[in-house]
Amino acid sequence: MKAVTFDKVSLGGFWKNRFEINKNATIPMVYDRFSDTGRFDAFKFEWKDGDPNRPHIFWDSDIAKWIEAVAYTIHLCPDKKLEAVVDGVVDLIEKNRDENGYFNIYFTVCEPDNRFVNRMAHELYCAGHLTEAAIAYYKATGKDKFLHLMCDYMDYIEKVFFIEDSAEFSTPGHEEIELALVKLYDCTGNEKYLEMSSRFVETRGTSEKDEESPYYISHAYDQSHKPVREQERATGHSVRATYLYCAMADLALRMKDDSLYDACRRLFLSIAEKQMYVTGGIGSTHYGERFTEDYDLPNDVAYSETCASIGLALFARRMSLIEPDSLYADIAEIAIYNCALAGVSLSGKAFFYVNPLEINMERNRKNIEYYQYKGSTYDTPQRLEVFDCSCCPPNIARMIASIGDILYTYNDDTVFVHHYFESQAEFEGIKITQNTEYPNNGAVKLTVRGMAGKTLAVRIPGWAENCTVSGAYKTEKGYAYIEIKDDETEINLDFAMECRLVCANPTVEADVGRVALCRGPLVYCAEKIDNGVPLNNLSICENLNASVSFNEEMQAYTVEADGFEDAPADSLYRTYRNDGIRRRIKLIPYFAFANRGASDMLVWLRIK
Amino acid sequence: MKAVTFDKVSLGGFWKNRFEINKNATIPMVYDRFSDTGRFDAFKFEWKDGDPNRPHIFWDSDIAKWIEAVAYTIHLCPDKKLEAVVDGVVDLIEKNRDENGYFNIYFTVCEPDNRFVNRMAHELYCAGHLTEAAIAYYKATGKDKFLHLMCDYMDYIEKVFFIEDSAEFSTPGHEEIELALVKLYDCTGNEKYLEMSSRFVETRGTSEKDEESPYYISHAYDQSHKPVREQERATGHSVRATYLYCAMADLALRMKDDSLYDACRRLFLSIAEKQMYVTGGIGSTHYGERFTEDYDLPNDVAYSETCASIGLALFARRMSLIEPDSLYADIAEIAIYNCALAGVSLSGKAFFYVNPLEINMERNRKNIEYYQYKGSTYDTPQRLEVFDCSCCPPNIARMIASIGDILYTYNDDTVFVHHYFESQAEFEGIKITQNTEYPNNGAVKLTVRGMAGKTLAVRIPGWAENCTVSGAYKTEKGYAYIEIKDDETEINLDFAMECRLVCANPTVEADVGRVALCRGPLVYCAEKIDNGVPLNNLSICENLNASVSFNEEMQAYTVEADGFEDAPADSLYRTYRNDGIRRRIKLIPYFAFANRGASDMLVWLRIK
Repeated sequence: MKAVTFDKVSLGGFWKNRFEINKNATIPMVYDRFSDTGRFDAFKFEWKDGDPNRPHIFWDSDIAKWIEAVAYTIHLCPDKKLEAVVDGVVDLIEKNRDENGYFNIYFTVCEPDNRFVNRMAHELYCAGHLTEAAIAYYKATGKDKFLHLMCDYMDYIEKVFFIEDSAEFSTPGHEEIELALVKLYDCTGNEKYLEMSSRFVETRGTSEKDEESPYYISHAYDQSHKPVREQERATGHSVRATYLYCAMADLALRMKDDSLYDACRRLFLSIAEKQMYVTGGIGSTHYGERFTEDYDLPNDVAYSETCASIGLALFARRMSLIEPDSLYADIAEIAIYNCALAGVSLSGKAFFYVNPLEINMERNRKNIEYYQYKGSTYDTPQRLEVFDCSCCPPNIARMIASIGDILYTYNDDTVFVHHYFESQAEFEGIKITQNTEYPNNGAVKLTVRGMAGKTLAVRIPGWAENCTVSGAYKTEKGYAYIEIKDDETEINLDFAMECRLVCANPTVEADVGRVALCRGPLVYCAEKIDNGVPLNNLSICENLNASVSFNEEMQAYTVEADGFEDAPADSLYRTYRNDGIRRRIKLIPYFAFANRGASDMLVWLRIK
Repeated sequence: MKAVTFDKVSLGGFWKNRFEINKNATIPMVYDRFSDTGRFDAFKFEWKDGDPNRPHIFWDSDIAKWIEAVAYTIHLCPDKKLEAVVDGVVDLIEKNRDENGYFNIYFTVCEPDNRFVNRMAHELYCAGHLTEAAIAYYKATGKDKFLHLMCDYMDYIEKVFFIEDSAEFSTPGHEEIELALVKLYDCTGNEKYLEMSSRFVETRGTSEKDEESPYYISHAYDQSHKPVREQERATGHSVRATYLYCAMADLALRMKDDSLYDACRRLFLSIAEKQMYVTGGIGSTHYGERFTEDYDLPNDVAYSETCASIGLALFARRMSLIEPDSLYADIAEIAIYNCALAGVSLSGKAFFYVNPLEINMERNRKNIEYYQYKGSTYDTPQRLEVFDCSCCPPNIARMIASIGDILYTYNDDTVFVHHYFESQAEFEGIKITQNTEYPNNGAVKLTVRGMAGKTLAVRIPGWAENCTVSGAYKTEKGYAYIEIKDDETEINLDFAMECRLVCANPTVEADVGRVALCRGPLVYCAEKIDNGVPLNNLSICENLNASVSFNEEMQAYTVEADGFEDAPADSLYRTYRNDGIRRRIKLIPYFAFANRGASDMLVWLRIK
């Protein structure tokens, strides 16, 4: 199975709007903030002790992800100015790299004697991101200098890790290079890179050289607690985890390795069935930014990092390439439309790193005070333009710039439609047009050309309780398989998109007695700015009596539904009476929260 | 108005049982643990650098409270062995005090050069507790040596603080001496001590010498943020606060100071109406063990210290002496029967310092892990025999030993019955017999002798929605005033004691959508050990259909009521259905929680 890449897809509607904001606002904004903070200048290798803006160990990767986002963008909309910026960075890499191919800002400028010594120092992680950027840039522009530089570096890494075995660790403390090496194999056809990826993956959890993370004292933090094939459940730092699982799925596909796929499936299910927020957020604790126990999904102190949700979507997309099970695209859809998209403001200019499912400003103020007292910090519930560790802004930028990547996969017989975007795609002599207002309306008109004799498999979204598919089809693992007979065929899908209330497994203590309002793939939340009172004083009615209205800025519907507000009381305690006051509750898509300043926010409303 | 003291009251029933446990188990247990930890030996002044058991700044007060409990106990039940232990301590105080009367273990043995330098070092607090102990011991035994020693010390304190003004602070960082000085005035008739108390109280919040606490950076921590008469709401460390307010009420009564009483009333209401747990616990945060904001009453991380609840009851009792308003006795009752009594196990041998209203063992385990990572600690939900800071065990012991203190107050015309205990009291030619199963049954037969021509004022408990009082009476501020005509009169009270559901003001976010089951003065809780499932998976029905059964060990009723359990689910998320499974929920009195090992516990149950 192969993926139809984003460059074969022309977007309209919801995602076209997001692509434009990403191009016109996010990419310039991230550029500006990364310039302000010295991240671009760091490539000059001129920093000296005492200078401001000491390079961080992950700055190479911040710029790499920005370049990757730029590459996808200029692939579709050429832009000579942006290209010149990237060329400048590439020239500096060429100029400042070692003769042996090694390139890393921090470990050349700040700690030149400590190369490949500190497993937790993101050295191979940076190499991976630079490689992804180089590949994207090569595909976008045809310029291969950056690609060659990264091939040289990877060759050097092969020497250090697999020929001489001279590094002080065997596998990176933050995965990323593994999936980058598979991409490099795909791009160059050089099997060495696939082999390197496989060795990094298979060595994890087996090497005595690999010490425990000092941050969270356990090999599970970076998925090194046992060989990857034996891992039963997703564990540890959730971005690290998903990047590893991406590489595992990549290898399983390319090496036709069923047992590796089985491990991937097991890990995927351990997330989707027990460790994922309803928004597709993962990693429920700030302590280690990691998976904890099954069903431990607190809402206000959720970590739920933007990057982790992107990682989950990347993992899910790779799984769709191996086995057509709609669960994968369902999870990708939840993660992308909710947690990941919440990571960037509607303006495209401000970001969340952490995406809680509840914000209570008063509690937050107390937590900040308390953590200060304990000598620690606590996150502010406001979108920021840049973070010290600013991995998320360029990550969401590259996701949106290449969002078309997730739509289709195909093999000789069948084309799979995993998602519904207003779009046109052309690949392998096939043309598919989607006319739809998705994610706001469940009606999709598919016009398919050049597929006579083949099968079109369309995903029935997991959220769709009622759906119609025009014509004859059979269903398997969430896909409706339609035999295409004519050169041009129109297929009409209708997934009834009503507001619905979702509850969590009662084992999720944070959500007991509560429901989340969803509509299609979108999860909704209430903000205090719309509802006036403390949000936990509201309860929503099972009989919603919902009305929706379209919001231009969000490009989505807001909702009003029936509920109650707790009756005010004069005393601190009183005899209970069921005397709530009937009122309407206003909700907006979760992805749009905190776009009107910091406000209380709540996904899981009390059910009346 | 005067109080009838505990020594005039002979107890039966519920409190007789508690008194016996206190005498036979708690007092010996606290003695043993205080011996093990070197607290008694510390009075020998033999500790040297390098020895184990370095004296703490508050050890004098730990032993003082234990002596006070012993004094009350032997006042009623003479015990020569216990008396000999106290005499031994008193001899050591006499032997080791300074010539000028000064006595303090820590500031003689550990930091002799720092006397009256560190405002936060509990020096005057220890003097106060030793004075309370000396008075109690004098009254119990007639032996006045200890009392004289403490008078000498107080005279020296007068010299240092009010004549020479040579201390490095003006008022103690932990109040206690103020109320002790009033007791010393009552005992000796020496007005100087009343004047000293008044000066300490009135100087608070006005002296530039008094620096901010280093623990919680604000003068409000120890109620020094403004002159006490101007303080609008209870604030800061809650034990400190209530001890101050006790002294303020003592002074208002004795000095007939209406404006000081107004301040006391305002502070009392700021607790009772906005800052008190339903159990009578106060001080909602571990950070500063203090009052926070109005309606900020989290259940699982509640501090709700045993000592603070005792302090609240002491404050309330003093307020009852100034103005007969049943609110005071209502609050004292809530605090004593719930939070304070929870501070000691049914066996009398183990204690809680912190009394949360919810225990979730799993969440607790994670908090312990997380706080360790942050370099801090988190309380275990288990009763312990002793604490490093072990103020609570001897405090609950002295409260129970003198519990009869709270029953009656009187003036020339009227006797006030504030509480209902199976008991007999004799004072001023009056005899009152109470026959009642209170707190387990609301029927009370009062037999009153020697009161012809006087008025008996009986409190109608705030919790009693229906009550009958035999004969003619008029009601004012929660008391039924009955004119007594005969030399022997029988009065029958019946406060209908049904299980009832209480809800909190909706501003208390922690309690939204939840209710506490109460019966008479007792608040109930559910324990996992009785209910099997996670307690937040239960919801209780408005129509309780309750049944009760008497538990011998608790000397109280347990309750079963109708409720629902959340239906189990296969998936992490699903469409909401109102499909709870009907079941009974078992509840026990809050004071009896954690007597069968550590278990999940919940006061505020979800309401169906």
